[in-house]
Amino acid sequence: MAEHTVKAFDEDITRLRGLIAEMGGLAEVAIQEALDAMIRGDAELAERVVARDKKIDAIESEVDKLAVRIIALRAPMADDLREVIAALKIAGVVERIGDYSKNIAKRVNMIEGRDRFEPLTLIPAMGDLACEMVHDVLTAYAARDPELAREVIATDAKVDAFYNSIFRNLVSHMVENPATISSAAQLLFVARNLERIGDHATNVAEMVHFAATGFYPPEDDEN
Amino acid sequence: MAEHTVKAFDEDITRLRGLIAEMGGLAEVAIQEALDAMIRGDAELAERVVARDKKIDAIESEVDKLAVRIIALRAPMADDLREVIAALKIAGVVERIGDYSKNIAKRVNMIEGRDRFEPLTLIPAMGDLACEMVHDVLTAYAARDPELAREVIATDAKVDAFYNSIFRNLVSHMVENPATISSAAQLLFVARNLERIGDHATNVAEMVHFAATGFYPPEDDEN
Repeated sequence: MAEHTVKAFDEDITRLRGLIAEMGGLAEVAIQEALDAMIRGDAELAERVVARDKKIDAIESEVDKLAVRIIALRAPMADDLREVIAALKIAGVVERIGDYSKNIAKRVNMIEGRDRFEPLTLIPAMGDLACEMVHDVLTAYAARDPELAREVIATDAKVDAFYNSIFRNLVSHMVENPATISSAAQLLFVARNLERIGDHATNVAEMVHFAATGFYPPEDDEN
Repeated sequence: MAEHTVKAFDEDITRLRGLIAEMGGLAEVAIQEALDAMIRGDAELAERVVARDKKIDAIESEVDKLAVRIIALRAPMADDLREVIAALKIAGVVERIGDYSKNIAKRVNMIEGRDRFEPLTLIPAMGDLACEMVHDVLTAYAARDPELAREVIATDAKVDAFYNSIFRNLVSHMVENPATISSAAQLLFVARNLERIGDHATNVAEMVHFAATGFYPPEDDEN
């Protein structure tokens, strides 16, 4: 590419990365606030989380458009092209993370008798961990840091352990308190959504690792 | 593009579409067989579904590589570029549909006393509908048919209705049979996975509609 094209390309890529960082920030807030709303039964906060998800969707389509424009105008080759395609895919995954948070927020009104659920203390801890994964993987993306990407992948095992523990806990709770089964089932889905957020952060970490090193970290086959 | 480049581009696109059709076929089989395994408690079939998911993943990465190669070598513009990007995104969604089926297959061993669950008759019907959506949306993609894409989107409401009915049914079942709560919780996840497959088929239908008409069908905001 000619020098002025290289500069224009770099500016476009910086903008692309900025959009993804912004999506990531919104997704982190969405996880935290969805869980906050869940714990406190705050329907108004839950509605704000649902409404704000449209912002994440809008940035994703901005990323898509910008990526198409970069490819069309700058005709990047090899590594540069792979970087643009990676941005497209990462934006797609962050959008899904936003969806899971929205889904948690939508369940806030379906849970009754929230003080009686022990998992309501485990779920926020699990949420913090999932949120940390999202934060770290976006830092790894921004810094092209394969080491941090591998740490994110390792953290997923802890999120899965939380999930298993919450699952068992909720099933026992259901057996002992049949009247709360419907609420407990909703909490199962909440835990499951957090577990999926961890999986998606792991997917992004694998992409970041690939982009930085040219190979994928060894797979653990958990989807 | 020069004439020989146009021809080469058309061949590449045909190959890309062929790969997506192949992924779609595998995803349909995965849904059907995962549910078959679930209904009959066939652990061996379930293992085959899990193993065969790697094939879907492999085709997705073939699509990714081919798309990058097309963009790099043929430098497609405007509509052609959008078509390649759409193929990338659709492959990603079909891969997720495969994941949901794998996830159902992985639960086969966790369900006990399967003859006593009424939802086990509703779940296959729901699965048929989800499978039909996946089939139709890939037909709509192949034929660039916005009408059929809109039909797929309309079918999602029926899948959601099945989900709600199965959810209520399972919760009642749990209340009446506390001993089976753990199995019932697994079936909740199965129904939920099918519901997500419907959502993803809807997402693809929206992309197909957009590619064919230049605008998205009116949104129903269900994610």
